[in-house]
Amino acid sequence: MPPRQRIKPGTRIITWTEDCFDGAAKTAADLPSKVMTPGHDNPQTGPFYIEGAEPGDTVAVHIIKLDPARSYAVSSFGPGFGALVGSSQTAMLGPDFPETTWRYDIDAKRNVAIASSRNGSLTWAVPLAPFLGCLGVAPAGGEVRTTIVPGPFGGNMDCPEVRAGNTVFLGVNVPGALLSFGDGHYAMGEGEIMGAAIEGAMNVEVYVELLKRTSTPVPRIENANEVMFVGSGRPLEDAARVAFKSMVGLARERSGLSEMDAYQFVAQNTKASIVQLVDPEYTVLVRLEKNRLPGLASK
Amino acid sequence: MPPRQRIKPGTRIITWTEDCFDGAAKTAADLPSKVMTPGHDNPQTGPFYIEGAEPGDTVAVHIIKLDPARSYAVSSFGPGFGALVGSSQTAMLGPDFPETTWRYDIDAKRNVAIASSRNGSLTWAVPLAPFLGCLGVAPAGGEVRTTIVPGPFGGNMDCPEVRAGNTVFLGVNVPGALLSFGDGHYAMGEGEIMGAAIEGAMNVEVYVELLKRTSTPVPRIENANEVMFVGSGRPLEDAARVAFKSMVGLARERSGLSEMDAYQFVAQNTKASIVQLVDPEYTVLVRLEKNRLPGLASK
Amino acid sequence: MPPRQRIKPGTRIITWTEDCFDGAAKTAADLPSKVMTPGHDNPQTGPFYIEGAEPGDTVAVHIIKLDPARSYAVSSFGPGFGALVGSSQTAMLGPDFPETTWRYDIDAKRNVAIASSRNGSLTWAVPLAPFLGCLGVAPAGGEVRTTIVPGPFGGNMDCPEVRAGNTVFLGVNVPGALLSFGDGHYAMGEGEIMGAAIEGAMNVEVYVELLKRTSTPVPRIENANEVMFVGSGRPLEDAARVAFKSMVGLARERSGLSEMDAYQFVAQNTKASIVQLVDPEYTVLVRLEKNRLPGLASK
Amino acid sequence: MPPRQRIKPGTRIITWTEDCFDGAAKTAADLPSKVMTPGHDNPQTGPFYIEGAEPGDTVAVHIIKLDPARSYAVSSFGPGFGALVGSSQTAMLGPDFPETTWRYDIDAKRNVAIASSRNGSLTWAVPLAPFLGCLGVAPAGGEVRTTIVPGPFGGNMDCPEVRAGNTVFLGVNVPGALLSFGDGHYAMGEGEIMGAAIEGAMNVEVYVELLKRTSTPVPRIENANEVMFVGSGRPLEDAARVAFKSMVGLARERSGLSEMDAYQFVAQNTKASIVQLVDPEYTVLVRLEKNRLPGLASK
Repeated sequence: MPPRQRIKPGTRIITWTEDCFDGAAKTAADLPSKVMTPGHDNPQTGPFYIEGAEPGDTVAVHIIKLDPARSYAVSSFGPGFGALVGSSQTAMLGPDFPETTWRYDIDAKRNVAIASSRNGSLTWAVPLAPFLGCLGVAPAGGEVRTTIVPGPFGGNMDCPEVRAGNTVFLGVNVPGALLSFGDGHYAMGEGEIMGAAIEGAMNVEVYVELLKRTSTPVPRIENANEVMFVGSGRPLEDAARVAFKSMVGLARERSGLSEMDAYQFVAQNTKASIVQLVDPEYTVLVRLEKNRLPGLASK
Repeated sequence: MPPRQRIKPGTRIITWTEDCFDGAAKTAADLPSKVMTPGHDNPQTGPFYIEGAEPGDTVAVHIIKLDPARSYAVSSFGPGFGALVGSSQTAMLGPDFPETTWRYDIDAKRNVAIASSRNGSLTWAVPLAPFLGCLGVAPAGGEVRTTIVPGPFGGNMDCPEVRAGNTVFLGVNVPGALLSFGDGHYAMGEGEIMGAAIEGAMNVEVYVELLKRTSTPVPRIENANEVMFVGSGRPLEDAARVAFKSMVGLARERSGLSEMDAYQFVAQNTKASIVQLVDPEYTVLVRLEKNRLPGLASK
Repeated sequence: MPPRQRIKPGTRIITWTEDCFDGAAKTAADLPSKVMTPGHDNPQTGPFYIEGAEPGDTVAVHIIKLDPARSYAVSSFGPGFGALVGSSQTAMLGPDFPETTWRYDIDAKRNVAIASSRNGSLTWAVPLAPFLGCLGVAPAGGEVRTTIVPGPFGGNMDCPEVRAGNTVFLGVNVPGALLSFGDGHYAMGEGEIMGAAIEGAMNVEVYVELLKRTSTPVPRIENANEVMFVGSGRPLEDAARVAFKSMVGLARERSGLSEMDAYQFVAQNTKASIVQLVDPEYTVLVRLEKNRLPGLASK
Repeated sequence: MPPRQRIKPGTRIITWTEDCFDGAAKTAADLPSKVMTPGHDNPQTGPFYIEGAEPGDTVAVHIIKLDPARSYAVSSFGPGFGALVGSSQTAMLGPDFPETTWRYDIDAKRNVAIASSRNGSLTWAVPLAPFLGCLGVAPAGGEVRTTIVPGPFGGNMDCPEVRAGNTVFLGVNVPGALLSFGDGHYAMGEGEIMGAAIEGAMNVEVYVELLKRTSTPVPRIENANEVMFVGSGRPLEDAARVAFKSMVGLARERSGLSEMDAYQFVAQNTKASIVQLVDPEYTVLVRLEKNRLPGLASK
């Protein structure tokens, strides 16, 4: 997509993102395949052309604020998509489950989203934990990917750590970087095994910084306490390998450890979450508390 | 292995487990392949024959206490084993990394294990979080597996939640169940990507209960707040599918949700960790806070 | 890419394709990373805009003739690419193997390509079996993919059955289909485990047909005796599932079998080859001799 | 299992193997779960204790003759087993397909096995290609595996090349090797995607040889023209890697190629088939025509 707006590095963007259904699904009766305009799935805000951004640079997106923009959110099951059913990639015989929608109502006081079983007899409440399912720059190699795909360029990472208070670092692949974001999630379980989170429009405030001549081959997220890598790929162990290898590299760079020592250090000190298990590439998050990084031996 | 001891359901076992090196590796100079007696790797305490246990029953192992039994622990790299190197299963060309050992010294006051880089210049400290790498019953189908393998029978799950305060539920496959445990880990990063944790001998206290006519096809761990499933398999997404499907089943059983509602509920409410990425089967832990389980709609 | 040429259905195209190195690698001394113009890797001939082709149609490409256009061909190893080494997707620690090139000389009389070991002491001859590594239409969903990627749109399938005498059926995703092809292979082992075949420029003659209102979700190849499906994905079992499920569907459509009978029929009658194990998606070919398809019981 | 018979190296064994249903399923009305004695699935002939066989040796099993021992064979689908349905390892939600049996009648004149669709309206004929689904020695590490598992010890490889005229080489793990075989298949499609071949009792004649001090870490099959490796593992690419790496090693040993040259040689000269995609480990066969192995350069 051509850029919609040009910004300078150091810009604060205050904006809004529509949900992955382009706002068309509002109740448990709204099946996305019926109510959505074709081609409108998972719309993004952007792209923003960042002046001066060139391949080899890194964009740092500081997420200042993410606020649910509606009093409800929607989740859904679409046939042929999901981690526990046959899909276009993990092809299985037999009938598909039917397309199904759940509406979640936001209870701002309790800070939860509340849904009911299809027959209305049971309810559950999910604590709000808003994040952006998508945040990315243009891919490398002249590729254009749909907004359902995560990768080295970020994109549909569906990662709960793309949340207020964190900074996302993405390597620039094309002039201007072409930053975009959207796919607000009010909350999501790890794995996103049904293929949709609790999806809702979001008020967004981010601050965009440009790090010149800084390579970032794998998306990285940081805050004061933690550094994290987001690996995407299939099978899931390959997604994990991408993130873990990046962490070994970071331990080497920041602490001066040898590769073997860094491997041992990372092996004993990181946490690893399955972020999503449904997109064309799966995603794993590997995290490290920064204060665990090795220091000089006091001899 | 024939049982070493017969116990009645309701027995408290107070015992001790040797580390995965059978105690032979003590310093960074001790290469397991040189110092260990062949065949002595990853020795277990047991098996315990639980009187009255029959296929179709479940053993509940309440872990009362797990205390590091030594003032040091050891970790190591063995060629052809690990998530970021070629292995016997993920075969790669090129030379192997050399066998390497790290010694960790326990600082009881700070509650950490401290290691040094191979050249001694850098150190790092890992908070102690002791658990048993292995806890299992005899496999089904007349199989005998090495103590490196995890599966539906438990075994080498390398799961940090096999810790004091938790109860592990395992389905019985043979008369007497043949419970065993060992492979104490003083701490471990998720993924166990080097193939070894911070390995140490452990003082162990467990209380063993027998649940008659209760099937447990996938290992389950519970405490007051959480219920967890431990899925093992390859590729890693299959390990995750095993655990997630078990959780969907639990949500149905405990709340009366339909399969589709339970799928949606689990999709928004669970956490999923990569437990280990090195054993013959990989392991994933899926967890749920029990108070999130659906209740009656108040209409 | 915008179309270079518009053709009518029923057009015979007589053309030529450059090799994957854009002709820049000619001897064992030519390292692609040094001799190639950046961005020129794996150039394609096309795209051809097929008049009247619309989403929902199928393009049938009859491959009339494929002749090696040079008296030599080249293969190479590039660090971070290949099935038996760490790669950008299967990330591994340790040093990469060095970039390496082999030249193959064509012996037209023996119909082989001959290469030497790097030190010149040993030679081997590979029977020529020319095919096009790439043959594809534009992807769905507005995507643009590099010429290294295979998928439902064909592309870099690296499939030896994309050869003279066979017809390749591809579903149309965009108006005009945007057919392109290239990446001539004079021969290749199944798996393409080093990431390159015996790569050479090719003289190409194809006849392009358009099948209106005929859906082809997975690439299919046919000749008088066989029908084949090309499944792409990761892990490799998922690539296989895509192809096998398509074959079950074909057995149902062409013979009127139920799903269960078709599943049994396919299970006993197909062959399945690993086509390539190196591209961003892996590729599997499942084939069936057409005369095995069920006929009416003669009762 | 304890050995049933002791044989000397150089013994010709003339025997018989029951089918995987222990002969209990005879018609399309016989559901294995109803007609089989529990625990009798996939019975083997043996184990044979081979005198003088020790760990580090290799058993060479020359398959002299394999003849279908009955005029019919049986195939079946069992819920939770198969490549295109949810299984205990690839866990999926939704109902299982029903257990189903097909009977195949042997037409000796046409050399085919003939089955009918469940409703009797359609028939198909599969050319006979008899082989043993299982051929193995005792596993390493004191393990006992069910006869459904393939591995470095052979076992349930379900490999069509375990046929008359071929020799299977297996590394010895325990004194006496403990050779066993069975699970006759009258024919099978590659992938064995339904989880069963055309299963039948077999008359078997093999000649057993012992190669002292010869290590065989991965099962190898040879005949006058070809050498093949059987890799087992999950995901399927890992099974392939095991077989391909073994072939690179063989090219080095037999021809004196460097590792890089051998990698290039194997990449251009082997065929790779998906053998089965249903057992606890998947199986891949990689084959090479021996006369392709490099010879001295004639300079």
